[in-house]
Amino acid sequence: MKHGKFIVVEGLEGAGKSSVIGLVKNTLIDAGISVELTREPGGTPMAEAIRECVKHDWEESVAEETELLLMYAARVQLLKNRILPALERGCWVVGDRHDLSSQAYQGGGRGVDASTMQAISEIALGGFKPDLTLYLDVEPATGLARARGRGELDRIEQAGLAFFERTRARYLSLAENDESIVVVNAMNDMPEVHRDVQRILQEYLG
Amino acid sequence: MKHGKFIVVEGLEGAGKSSVIGLVKNTLIDAGISVELTREPGGTPMAEAIRECVKHDWEESVAEETELLLMYAARVQLLKNRILPALERGCWVVGDRHDLSSQAYQGGGRGVDASTMQAISEIALGGFKPDLTLYLDVEPATGLARARGRGELDRIEQAGLAFFERTRARYLSLAENDESIVVVNAMNDMPEVHRDVQRILQEYLG
Repeated sequence: MKHGKFIVVEGLEGAGKSSVIGLVKNTLIDAGISVELTREPGGTPMAEAIRECVKHDWEESVAEETELLLMYAARVQLLKNRILPALERGCWVVGDRHDLSSQAYQGGGRGVDASTMQAISEIALGGFKPDLTLYLDVEPATGLARARGRGELDRIEQAGLAFFERTRARYLSLAENDESIVVVNAMNDMPEVHRDVQRILQEYLG
Repeated sequence: MKHGKFIVVEGLEGAGKSSVIGLVKNTLIDAGISVELTREPGGTPMAEAIRECVKHDWEESVAEETELLLMYAARVQLLKNRILPALERGCWVVGDRHDLSSQAYQGGGRGVDASTMQAISEIALGGFKPDLTLYLDVEPATGLARARGRGELDRIEQAGLAFFERTRARYLSLAENDESIVVVNAMNDMPEVHRDVQRILQEYLG
């Protein structure tokens, strides 16, 4: 039985996810809610080992199906061992990425077909979805410039600009068709992004 | 374009796969055929890292979906980077396990439903299958006793006897419905098993 809520923060590299996650966490704590943070891929020892496999810069080429299957392997491990138990305890979980990332990056960016994306999501998650997703929308060039300022980019982050344009377009079209996904303009300055996020959260908390 | 053939050796722990793989390899080489060996899960640096994730004795519980997705992640990586390129070069590939292992262990042993098994196999392999599979059939108690004699058993091998009974039953029922799978009685002494395998191979090589 699920007592807590699962709130996910999504967006391209450099969209400002970490800062917004901190804000969501503090806002919930101020409202007297217990909070647990997760990041994907990862979040349990086994899922973190799978994350290493996905992120590593292999000399061999990585098949798009391999990447997809690993992402969902890490996700189901996190879901069963951390997210669901926390929600059952009444904790709220704030996730740095979840299923929508795969839908956008692998489905949109890499072009994995919709029926494959749907089948694998169903196998791994069996219809589970977040209660609220905040999608931080940035133009890829802006986001990547911010991410580069933080240091090295990993294998996935090194994909070309066109890849991120396709990923962003998929994020936006998925948000349009799902009212649990709220788009936040993350091209704005951080204080303005924070004001928007706080308004959305206050509405959600009622 | 595929020029070589893919021959897979399957069976429970202690069925005698390693010995039979050596025999198949030598028989093919004697017939003037180039041979490459693979083992699953594993066979490329990335697939071996995934194998480590699957086989490791994690303190957390491993979801059956996680295990299934990891097995197929390793499999598609091996298929695209080793098996298909070798077959295209005209090499024959002799595999220590392939898709049938997942069908038997995860589908039969763990009880993952047939539609899930079919969907994930299709996502990862897109209909690719071996040209010939030699299934070495042993009673689980006999196989496990032989495997124990070799040293420690890993996480999957530590599953109970009932698990291996279900796995064996699935192997046998799949073999019954697929003429590319040949059942070898591996309860026999090794010289007799080798004679059977050699007869099957000579027929196959025509």
